[in-house]
Amino acid sequence: MNSSQGHPFAGDPVFDLHVGGKMEILSTVELAGRDELSLAYTPGVARVCEAIAADPEMTRYYTWVPNTVAVVTDGTAVLGLGDIGPAAAMPVMEGKAVLFKQFGGVDAVPICLATTDTEEIIETVARLAPSFGGINLEDISAPRCFEIEERLKGMLDIPVFHDDQHGTAVVALAALTNALRLTGREMATTRVVIAGAGAAGVAVAKILLGAGVRDLAVTDRQGVLSSRRHDLTPVKAGLARLTADTFDRHGSLADVMAGADVYIGVSGGTVPEEVVATMADEAVIFGLANPNPEVHPDVARRHARVVATGRSDFPNQINNVLAFPGIFRGAFDVHASAITEGMKLAAASALADLVGADLSEDLIVPSPFDPRVGPAVSSAVAEAARRDAVARR
Amino acid sequence: MNSSQGHPFAGDPVFDLHVGGKMEILSTVELAGRDELSLAYTPGVARVCEAIAADPEMTRYYTWVPNTVAVVTDGTAVLGLGDIGPAAAMPVMEGKAVLFKQFGGVDAVPICLATTDTEEIIETVARLAPSFGGINLEDISAPRCFEIEERLKGMLDIPVFHDDQHGTAVVALAALTNALRLTGREMATTRVVIAGAGAAGVAVAKILLGAGVRDLAVTDRQGVLSSRRHDLTPVKAGLARLTADTFDRHGSLADVMAGADVYIGVSGGTVPEEVVATMADEAVIFGLANPNPEVHPDVARRHARVVATGRSDFPNQINNVLAFPGIFRGAFDVHASAITEGMKLAAASALADLVGADLSEDLIVPSPFDPRVGPAVSSAVAEAARRDAVARR
Repeated sequence: MNSSQGHPFAGDPVFDLHVGGKMEILSTVELAGRDELSLAYTPGVARVCEAIAADPEMTRYYTWVPNTVAVVTDGTAVLGLGDIGPAAAMPVMEGKAVLFKQFGGVDAVPICLATTDTEEIIETVARLAPSFGGINLEDISAPRCFEIEERLKGMLDIPVFHDDQHGTAVVALAALTNALRLTGREMATTRVVIAGAGAAGVAVAKILLGAGVRDLAVTDRQGVLSSRRHDLTPVKAGLARLTADTFDRHGSLADVMAGADVYIGVSGGTVPEEVVATMADEAVIFGLANPNPEVHPDVARRHARVVATGRSDFPNQINNVLAFPGIFRGAFDVHASAITEGMKLAAASALADLVGADLSEDLIVPSPFDPRVGPAVSSAVAEAARRDAVARR
Repeated sequence: MNSSQGHPFAGDPVFDLHVGGKMEILSTVELAGRDELSLAYTPGVARVCEAIAADPEMTRYYTWVPNTVAVVTDGTAVLGLGDIGPAAAMPVMEGKAVLFKQFGGVDAVPICLATTDTEEIIETVARLAPSFGGINLEDISAPRCFEIEERLKGMLDIPVFHDDQHGTAVVALAALTNALRLTGREMATTRVVIAGAGAAGVAVAKILLGAGVRDLAVTDRQGVLSSRRHDLTPVKAGLARLTADTFDRHGSLADVMAGADVYIGVSGGTVPEEVVATMADEAVIFGLANPNPEVHPDVARRHARVVATGRSDFPNQINNVLAFPGIFRGAFDVHASAITEGMKLAAASALADLVGADLSEDLIVPSPFDPRVGPAVSSAVAEAARRDAVARR
């Protein structure tokens, strides 16, 4: 379908590539004649329907459902573009579907919803659930994304995963694991600042706590989330108790940056160089905003030993594609009923370990095109699913 | 994925063929490295999103949406199996998707809903609409299917089509057109009986009226739908006024069969041979129930000149697959906002005309495997869409 002719932006390589979209449905059975038609469709198919009606578990053998994920968005927080609506979100969701297939062998269907209401999104996804083996929530703005994910996890017995939160968190943890290896630090004694308390910031904070980080401050535009503040949403107040309160960190971003070992930016703001300069020796700086990192790598390198961004044109790209295809592949391989904290930690650990002897300041995460990534993540995730008793085969 | 090993019904050809389901998602772009990734996904894709946000019409050029139909069911009226639920309906919906692709080049996504509530189905489909270029309703029981289709048609500016109604109606009309050619009859002067007032019966009645039939009686289990009865639902009462009332047909099925030229069974009941014997000379009998036609072809042939069924193992199979792939192909080719009565009539006419000089008692509709079917139906439908001013290109 793709062509460089007959469309409004013909000749522009990005638009030429997008003509007709980026995906299609393919039949895995051949219907050459009436005999095959009578197996794949009526009358033969009726026996498969009856088998599933008698035992819904048969779904996992005789349908595409157990390998299929819905990539669900309401178009409110698409890339750095914000609330552009469901129609305009579709190219990203198709891209996600393409990545799911290429890097995880997972069939993904983009679902762009014409509602931004929390209750409506929840009930709609719940009604769609019989059609899918998993739900990947995507580009839904905070704080609605937290409630939508939590409620759906409680309602459904299939994996529900908000990639903007957990995909980012898994890869950031993998990168941090290797950055601490390089700089000779331990999670439990490292001082970390996370700038940004949206979907990614909250999830990164939670996974770092799960990985053993204890001295952690999360900031929003008003400063550090701490119980000294009285303007916090319930999500932020809860996070404050788990993070900055432990060592009574408080004040402005600049206040907590002084002496910090690690800065992780998921805010889209910028940090002045004089603040960056106050960090500890051998600092670690991840500026993950796209396309403009919170600390430009050229600036960061003057003050830090390890620097990562969300961009492909600098070393150490923190790219979700390292995580989500393998996570769903692993969950689907064992027919998991959920994606647990243990499965996410296992994915991060597998990613970090893949770098192995190649570990250096400019290589703390593997390349998305490293063919070992998907299999390593999926097998670690499947194993963790068994450990966490959510595997169903 | 398909295999004859490692599943509960291994060795059974129908189940062997269904292992892993019957469809998958395929990427139409290749992601061999970072450069391609940056065109198909971030950062390149952002420009496509912005173009659509600025002008939603761009969706039709740069996404898979305009070629994609949702095949939506609630699992309440699946084949002859009845209300088997959404999970058990999936193999039929996948089969439908496979047929959409093979015979129409249309990408179809099966959506099996965990609700049977009319309002919930309507609102759910409306919320999904930005993701799809059309909606094919499937195997939703009457009378809910009528309201669901009508309301969605009013709400959405994309084709909404209940195949159990209109697919059956289009192919039945094509078959009847050729049966009347063979027997030297005209629509306007032919006496027709339709047994069954469910989804298919109502739709067949309406398309026959649109095609010029005037003397038409529709029956349910209590007899002919006529204004003499006081037990009719609103849908049935409306249909009575348009059909049997015209010539004051009333009474039992046997009453109206006496002297009738055409019998079309879409009821799943049976007609005694002594009733069949009272039909006019050169009668036409379509027994469309599967797997047991209302009049067995061996019986029907003793009393009729032209006999059709829904089965592939007798001549003249009235099979929806002759219609729905080409109808959506034609609608999508002109980016139609709806599927009109004119488009359905055009599809039936194209199907009937394809038989051409081969027309005989045993060949009143083409084979689904005749490669001319899809193109003939789609071009007739596209032309009718332009005539009816629903084409948008």
